[in-house]
Amino acid sequence: LTSKLPDVGTSIFSVMTQLAQEHEAINLAQGFPDYDPPRPLLEALARHVLTPGHQQYAPMPGLPRLREAISHQTALRYGYTPDPATEITVTSGATEGLYAVMAAVVRPGDEVLLLEPAYDLYAPAVRLQGGVPVYVPLAAPNFRPDWDRVAAALSPRTRLVLINSPHNPTGAVLSAADLDTLAGLLRDTDALLLSDEVYEHMVFDGAAHNSVSAHPELRARAFVLSSFGKTYHATGWKVGYCLAPPALTAELRRVHQFITFSVSTPTQHALADVLPDAALYESLPAFYQQKRDLLRELLAPTGFELLPSGGGYFQVASFKNLAPGLDDVTFSRRLTQESGVAVVPLSAFYHNGHDAQLVRFCFAKTEATLRAAAARLVDLK
Amino acid sequence: LTSKLPDVGTSIFSVMTQLAQEHEAINLAQGFPDYDPPRPLLEALARHVLTPGHQQYAPMPGLPRLREAISHQTALRYGYTPDPATEITVTSGATEGLYAVMAAVVRPGDEVLLLEPAYDLYAPAVRLQGGVPVYVPLAAPNFRPDWDRVAAALSPRTRLVLINSPHNPTGAVLSAADLDTLAGLLRDTDALLLSDEVYEHMVFDGAAHNSVSAHPELRARAFVLSSFGKTYHATGWKVGYCLAPPALTAELRRVHQFITFSVSTPTQHALADVLPDAALYESLPAFYQQKRDLLRELLAPTGFELLPSGGGYFQVASFKNLAPGLDDVTFSRRLTQESGVAVVPLSAFYHNGHDAQLVRFCFAKTEATLRAAAARLVDLK
Ligand SMILES: CSCCC(=O)C(=O)O
Ligand SMILES: CSCCC(=O)C(=O)O
Repeated sequence: LTSKLPDVGTSIFSVMTQLAQEHEAINLAQGFPDYDPPRPLLEALARHVLTPGHQQYAPMPGLPRLREAISHQTALRYGYTPDPATEITVTSGATEGLYAVMAAVVRPGDEVLLLEPAYDLYAPAVRLQGGVPVYVPLAAPNFRPDWDRVAAALSPRTRLVLINSPHNPTGAVLSAADLDTLAGLLRDTDALLLSDEVYEHMVFDGAAHNSVSAHPELRARAFVLSSFGKTYHATGWKVGYCLAPPALTAELRRVHQFITFSVSTPTQHALADVLPDAALYESLPAFYQQKRDLLRELLAPTGFELLPSGGGYFQVASFKNLAPGLDDVTFSRRLTQESGVAVVPLSAFYHNGHDAQLVRFCFAKTEATLRAAAARLVDLK
Repeated sequence: LTSKLPDVGTSIFSVMTQLAQEHEAINLAQGFPDYDPPRPLLEALARHVLTPGHQQYAPMPGLPRLREAISHQTALRYGYTPDPATEITVTSGATEGLYAVMAAVVRPGDEVLLLEPAYDLYAPAVRLQGGVPVYVPLAAPNFRPDWDRVAAALSPRTRLVLINSPHNPTGAVLSAADLDTLAGLLRDTDALLLSDEVYEHMVFDGAAHNSVSAHPELRARAFVLSSFGKTYHATGWKVGYCLAPPALTAELRRVHQFITFSVSTPTQHALADVLPDAALYESLPAFYQQKRDLLRELLAPTGFELLPSGGGYFQVASFKNLAPGLDDVTFSRRLTQESGVAVVPLSAFYHNGHDAQLVRFCFAKTEATLRAAAARLVDLK
């Protein structure tokens, strides 16, 4: 048996989490909160689990009442009301949504444009369809797209352009002008857009999240992904959704029905119960900004050099003053083993292992965890 | 945008369920129980949902304690102890397990041998990888494989042979001799085996389930799928698993990590709690045989002609005496609309629409539901 993805190993997140466990390191590597979902959500799920008749298959596109709630929330947040019947599909996390989009629209030889660094599943999901990832680099320290390079990378074979804001791993956020520029670039092409917005509720410093859902021209050709796991501190529940115009949604569902068919029924009921409570997600920018600021303050006295982070779960830092010349994988392993703090080397987000001596910290952690981690790092000068 | 699956519409199960709802018909079409999971399982899930620290990502291959429990159960049932670390992967239902197997091992041009009638997702999952389904018919009324035809259909391009026992839609079960014959056929080939055993706990008339897991020669080249949704009357929870030797499991996980990454953490904890209670699944053969027998008894006075059903959720019946010459799709629609009982036309399980005037009844329903359905059918002579 020859592998279809011979060069792809276990995801860096699993590898670092396991290494962290072996060395009793504090896990700031894999992106998940070390606190629980809001109590009303937990209680809603416990209630629906005990509700007769809520334990069998949900409809393939998602529970109607959850899709209705998503539609209302989208209208409130982005001034656009997607049709629950034809434009919203509930998926087994944004991960399945992303994979299903690839399976639905990418054919052998199709090009998919990725901005690097890129979340680790994008390229394998493209390649498993026989598609060809085309990489456009984002430059440190701001990691903002160079749209001229994007324009140069577009070709008649470009099937899909993938954007991600707030960005994993860098925390870069796209501006309204970025979206306008992208719309101009795509205007005369057949390329579709995939917008990974799983951190949509975590944008800092008073900035707004510029959703593709709020951009009429772009959303007409876009799949937009969101994640309840991120929004509700419930990454282990594996529920997300995809917004797309009817023709795109039809293709997405055609494959979604064969990939997972449907998503946990009681979990969808619970999410539908809490989604109307806007306070739960409106509190997130301040909640996460405080964590980002705390982590930055705690790391400031160390030899780490902090890059900007405008949104999401993550803070990128350079260790070049701490370990000149050391590669980022070795540095990350040593930090885990010797200092007891696990991070992700940024080269894991590049297809060619590009290494600029950067690591990613996840700050979706309690204040106590962040302080404990910083205490282990304080002597790194 | 041209579709990758232009001929594939919404699954027949969704279509018939929706038609049943529109006409307030009793839904004996889609395969799901109309009763709830065992109370201890519901209570376990409610408890784990309220347990701090159980709501974030499970490990990608599944929760260790659930994999341990699966290993023990497999040892008890099939005399084989799969290694939780390298041979067991928890998936988002057997559906995702099946799709992931296809994505892991089927390449463009590879042939996958399917026995028809076949569960509706098999062929699309093959085709989405660029694979070529090769169909071998199973003949009514017993729907047992003709192994000479299987042998004739094998070719050097055969990547995978798919078997399913107890069989959906027909209820046919494979004998120990069938597995030995298949082992002989595959002995000198490179073909892998995918064994869909989601109804493994529902075999009737005192027969044992002949699992590929209990067959050393076959399991050395096999992916074996199981479904907690079926075993615990919880089809809406979407948890299943795949057993396979280490080299195959490695390839499966390589793609599983990109398709869904992981499965609901609290749900896996709850399943791990109840799996050691053998009484829960050992009671299933009698429980479902009683339902099969009741449905057969209730339909006997009608003009339906009942085919054998040796296991699973389903009873196939011929309507040729009721509506000579009528196609099965029209008959099924009329039965839903006019008699108020929804069934699935068997042509939905054939790539070429083969129609032998057969329909499938699901008997995973309460006695009251089965009696109410029969009362609506009793005048069909
Ligand atoms: C699916 S595990 C990875 C979680 C995550 O989004 C990240 O760490 O970047
Ligand atoms: C995933 S919906 C179909 C359920 C089922 O297994 C069937 O009805 O055959």
